[in-house]
Amino acid sequence: MKKELVISKIEKGTVIDHINAGKALLVLRILGIGVGSRDTVTLAMNVPSKKMGRKDIVKVANKFIGEEELNKIALIAPKATINLIEDYEVKRKFKVKPPEFIEGILRCPNRNCITNSGEVITPKFYIRLEGDKVVAKCYYCNRVIKNVDECVV
Amino acid sequence: MKKELVISKIEKGTVIDHINAGKALLVLRILGIGVGSRDTVTLAMNVPSKKMGRKDIVKVANKFIGEEELNKIALIAPKATINLIEDYEVKRKFKVKPPEFIEGILRCPNRNCITNSGEVITPKFYIRLEGDKVVAKCYYCNRVIKNVDECVV
Repeated sequence: MKKELVISKIEKGTVIDHINAGKALLVLRILGIGVGSRDTVTLAMNVPSKKMGRKDIVKVANKFIGEEELNKIALIAPKATINLIEDYEVKRKFKVKPPEFIEGILRCPNRNCITNSGEVITPKFYIRLEGDKVVAKCYYCNRVIKNVDECVV
Repeated sequence: MKKELVISKIEKGTVIDHINAGKALLVLRILGIGVGSRDTVTLAMNVPSKKMGRKDIVKVANKFIGEEELNKIALIAPKATINLIEDYEVKRKFKVKPPEFIEGILRCPNRNCITNSGEVITPKFYIRLEGDKVVAKCYYCNRVIKNVDECVV
């Protein structure tokens, strides 16, 4: 007797492939999918990948992702590829691209940064890539952020 | 061009099937699997089920679950079936069974309950089923808990 997790194709929706291993749950959080969510979602964590060694994949039916979600995903999974599915076919495929400069999305972890002072100031960051990892630098206080994951709002 | 999420069989591990729709992420949390986890995990949320209408499935390679995890899963997914896989075959298959009485696992949501007073008292609960849902009653203050999910420690 065999037990396989058979994942049927979706008629339409989004497949996010080549997510850094172990980050799929963060991608779900960015997409607003949590406990009790009614979206049809399939997810694989730490599966073998030729390019990446190991990777995560997330597939969400009937959902197309917006610019802000894409920018967030690019920050935690800079090698991710996005496949937009319609009529069971990949209609568009592209790589995410971390923006060079962002407003919002992250909060600065420096408690003395002016963006954490209670003033209404949108945090801003310069973004650069170090290999597979995104490094952010606060526009206001110059704090360098290597654990970008933990700073996503 | 087609894009399918192909989930290969696991050599050994655990498949948790017939999880109440939308609760798979809670099951992952119970199993201690979070962002950055290195376990190989596949998960499906809100997929069609003959028995349940919609259901969730979680599959974890190289992991067998212990008694305490099983009891927790039974509380949030009382219809779950557990498949233990070895050598690519289902070696054991059983349904979870919510215990009639538990110690720990939940915390009482009643802030005036003696278990929340700062005293070292292990919370205890009577457990019963209402259809697909588990209802707990605090042994100490008799508070009836219908949103068991939110009280899992």
